[in-house]
Amino acid sequence: MDTVNKPAESRELVLARLIDAPPENVFRAWTEPELLKQWFTPKPWTVASAELDVRPGGGNRIVMRSPEGQNFPNSGVYLEVIKNERLVFTDAYTKAWEPSEKPFMTAIITFEYDGGKTRYTARVRHWSAADRKTHEEMGFHEGWSKATDQLAELLAGL
Amino acid sequence: MDTVNKPAESRELVLARLIDAPPENVFRAWTEPELLKQWFTPKPWTVASAELDVRPGGGNRIVMRSPEGQNFPNSGVYLEVIKNERLVFTDAYTKAWEPSEKPFMTAIITFEYDGGKTRYTARVRHWSAADRKTHEEMGFHEGWSKATDQLAELLAGL
Repeated sequence: MDTVNKPAESRELVLARLIDAPPENVFRAWTEPELLKQWFTPKPWTVASAELDVRPGGGNRIVMRSPEGQNFPNSGVYLEVIKNERLVFTDAYTKAWEPSEKPFMTAIITFEYDGGKTRYTARVRHWSAADRKTHEEMGFHEGWSKATDQLAELLAGL
Repeated sequence: MDTVNKPAESRELVLARLIDAPPENVFRAWTEPELLKQWFTPKPWTVASAELDVRPGGGNRIVMRSPEGQNFPNSGVYLEVIKNERLVFTDAYTKAWEPSEKPFMTAIITFEYDGGKTRYTARVRHWSAADRKTHEEMGFHEGWSKATDQLAELLAGL
């Protein structure tokens, strides 16, 4: 385990994209369960269920389902919610304020207005450089990129 | 490292006390730097400085000084603030939302009105039973108990 205190950059993974939809809609796609279910997991994975209590200290529980039908539940807590601008959540807690089995990541999602479009940035921070590496090897870039394609498609049809 | 997901109780340390002061004053002693400095570290330790940005996402930085004059800085972030009722903070972040070197504890401090006095409870939760044990061996009960004596004394004089 890497116990040296690294600056955030070396423990961070980032996805940035200009999305052709206003921030309000991108924020909705992150916070309304029926919308989130349509884009959140790269196909052929699906979202079996999504409960999102979008407020600081509110919990989320998203069950991802593999193509083979196996369920993978994920729980987290929102740390910061600024409507249409910013959403921060972590898996360090399963609910307010129950520590999870392993604090792995904190996601900082920002939605910036840019001439009718949204400058969309997802920063995913880890507690160690080793965890960042693991996340990268699990396919972070591919997975989040594909999900973001699905998000953009969904938004184009809203 | 303990990787089994334990219920909160086995990862928690608790201090409970009935304090002869109203919740407003106990809350002040936790949130006003000049008051906190007077009780927070068991003597002969002192608090060299305290910066407290008391709001969800706000940071705190408390420098504790040993009798030999060595400084021990501690940083954390407030997760939940309900004035005169409840204060939650963690060392999992050094500021919003920068992961710390090691997420060790989350403190949930509650102030309940009880006939002019305060039913005061400090719950300190850890991410593993091993960390709870370490904290206990570092002298949690003795240290927090002595600090709480100092808190009660300070409040008696307010």
